[in-house]
Amino acid sequence: MNSKSYVSYLFKKIKNLTFANPGVTRATYGTGENATHNFLIKEIKQFTNDIKQDFGGNFLAVYKGKSKKIVVIGSHLDSQKHGGNFDGLAGVIMGIALFKILKKEKIEPKYSIGVMGIRGEESCWFPYSYIGSKIALGIFDKKLLHTLKRSDTNKSLYYHINKAGFDSKSVSLKKINFDIKNIISYIEPHIEQGPVLERKKISLGIVSGIRGSFRFRDAKCLGKYLHSGATPLEYRSDSVVAVSYLVGEMNNIWQKELKKNKDLTITFGQFFTDNEEHSFAKSAGLVNFCIDVRSNSKITLDYIKKILLKKIKKIEKDTNTRFKLGEETNSEPALMNTKLIKKFTISSKKLKIQSEIMASGAGHDASVFANFGIPSVMLFIRNKNGSHNPKEHMSLNHFMDVLKVLHKTINDI
Amino acid sequence: MNSKSYVSYLFKKIKNLTFANPGVTRATYGTGENATHNFLIKEIKQFTNDIKQDFGGNFLAVYKGKSKKIVVIGSHLDSQKHGGNFDGLAGVIMGIALFKILKKEKIEPKYSIGVMGIRGEESCWFPYSYIGSKIALGIFDKKLLHTLKRSDTNKSLYYHINKAGFDSKSVSLKKINFDIKNIISYIEPHIEQGPVLERKKISLGIVSGIRGSFRFRDAKCLGKYLHSGATPLEYRSDSVVAVSYLVGEMNNIWQKELKKNKDLTITFGQFFTDNEEHSFAKSAGLVNFCIDVRSNSKITLDYIKKILLKKIKKIEKDTNTRFKLGEETNSEPALMNTKLIKKFTISSKKLKIQSEIMASGAGHDASVFANFGIPSVMLFIRNKNGSHNPKEHMSLNHFMDVLKVLHKTINDI
Repeated sequence: MNSKSYVSYLFKKIKNLTFANPGVTRATYGTGENATHNFLIKEIKQFTNDIKQDFGGNFLAVYKGKSKKIVVIGSHLDSQKHGGNFDGLAGVIMGIALFKILKKEKIEPKYSIGVMGIRGEESCWFPYSYIGSKIALGIFDKKLLHTLKRSDTNKSLYYHINKAGFDSKSVSLKKINFDIKNIISYIEPHIEQGPVLERKKISLGIVSGIRGSFRFRDAKCLGKYLHSGATPLEYRSDSVVAVSYLVGEMNNIWQKELKKNKDLTITFGQFFTDNEEHSFAKSAGLVNFCIDVRSNSKITLDYIKKILLKKIKKIEKDTNTRFKLGEETNSEPALMNTKLIKKFTISSKKLKIQSEIMASGAGHDASVFANFGIPSVMLFIRNKNGSHNPKEHMSLNHFMDVLKVLHKTINDI
Repeated sequence: MNSKSYVSYLFKKIKNLTFANPGVTRATYGTGENATHNFLIKEIKQFTNDIKQDFGGNFLAVYKGKSKKIVVIGSHLDSQKHGGNFDGLAGVIMGIALFKILKKEKIEPKYSIGVMGIRGEESCWFPYSYIGSKIALGIFDKKLLHTLKRSDTNKSLYYHINKAGFDSKSVSLKKINFDIKNIISYIEPHIEQGPVLERKKISLGIVSGIRGSFRFRDAKCLGKYLHSGATPLEYRSDSVVAVSYLVGEMNNIWQKELKKNKDLTITFGQFFTDNEEHSFAKSAGLVNFCIDVRSNSKITLDYIKKILLKKIKKIEKDTNTRFKLGEETNSEPALMNTKLIKKFTISSKKLKIQSEIMASGAGHDASVFANFGIPSVMLFIRNKNGSHNPKEHMSLNHFMDVLKVLHKTINDI
């Protein structure tokens, strides 16, 4: 079996193992994730016997190179409920495919090559991201073992780690089971979740940074329910008008920042008047909405938040309404390693495989490795229809293009 | 009992008769409406014996004057479910209070004075407005007798008219039971449903016109659900952004038209992303919304609709979204009679009771009489907290101010 057929075989096998019509389901520490880990560990045994699992069930398989320094290729193996087969899985399979190529070549690589299968990256099962990578690096906050409950069972992470056959107690003691200090870089191949590569018809995106964010998930604007025909403009207190102004103005700000070459996204994904009280014949007294602002620059995030608060103050005055933004959640941006970005750019040029340097809008385990201090980079693989849904679609040809670039670069880290 | 005590007694009596904690309920052809009609007809008998009911259950009581020409004071006696006690009822009670004054004065008025109690004005019981006034004038579309179903019983209007003791067959034949051709004007006192008089501390509003409207009650904007962090601006198709731009721009247009002294209201009372699909981490692929535009000028309505459609076209292009406005409903504006407006203005000045000339944003039976060709006017009574809710609040002092102006004007129509 050649590499491409082998890759295809692995994707199909795991799709069948975790099929959940429609799509696949691989809950963190659930049946699907466990089956995927077990199957891949068995597969990897044809290439190396140096395979370890840690106390939280992550695995690290190492293909011995000339140096004991390890270049890790990794990603996560959980999925959303009824998610797609490629999100996460593609990165681990690319590492395994690289093992197959290395074994066939019979050339000892410059560095040892690791493949890491990571648990629990998605925040849909436990309301927290990067559980597995934080356990692997010994930086997982032990309090969360008891407070985090899985959305489908309402049982704790502590319970589920043990139930899957691992050791919550050791996790709580931050025990590490991998040779972390010898990891010199972390490379995460991953399908792109936006449309950029697909639109530009490019197989490979080299990620410059993972965007951080600030979010107000439960914001409100309070106005008054007033007769639509009988209330003059000067007496209105219309929360639909207020939030609409805010959305429009923040979208204009986004356009302005892009012209200044700032990295930024601004999204109001929810905007809803009250089902019980709204009517076509009244101005709306309540709008619930959310804001999600992302950038790979902390400075940009701070600047946009300042503008947002200023705009709200003015709109409150202009429209006689009141905003309550509610709790704020944040994530820090993580910069990818510039040397690694450069090396992958050069390789892709040499291979005449076009690449695009781009930010990652979604969070990934690579941000944990990067912020831990391990030089990291992500390789985005062209993908259709976004991710987290059964329609996500990655062509094997694009996968193989990225694998070629990875293979060419691997001895030159 | 003086007039004020009598008015207070009538309001209290009917509130008790139709109490529906909270508020009152007087469904069209239902128990509450029937009880109100029966009670008031009995009361009126102390002032005149010339009381008729028509085939649809409206009543017209006539206090004989020097001429057989009739000036009608009227309004409706149905209410919303758990509505307020004053909406509609105030107009009929004001007519009866005028009867009491005329009888006490023992002076024969210049014209005969009519008090009309009208059925079914609210469109919440049957999805259609002005049932009673259209029956009274012989212009009710007979097809509707069978197609309109009452919201609480799902039984037809035909059924309910008969059940209340009247004659649907005769209604369907457009039989009239009142002396319509002698009615020379229709005056409808009614609580103001907006906040203008309350804010300005004025008892009386003299209505210049009843606003017509165009409405899109089930409009949609279709975009795409795309990853909030991973989708650059140029690939977005965000329906929240699109509709927000529309709301903001139409609100700006409203401000502009007011500066040109145009009569206008523009309201987007509902604006909601899809409960099942929206998320803080995706741009929204669907917004449902409604638009309600009102003006007392048909020209303004047509102009605003033209602008609305033009704006939508541009926004669709700018945001890569698609609008589906859905079915449009309309109502024609109705101008109140300028001579009547002038007469009431002069009387209020003479009495040193401040008045304000203003448009009615809500529809009323007066629009049916005016468009039928009967010179009509409405007198708004200062009122707190809007209408259609148990908190509507009209002070008896303001009611008595308006009654004084009505009394002073009545011989001078």
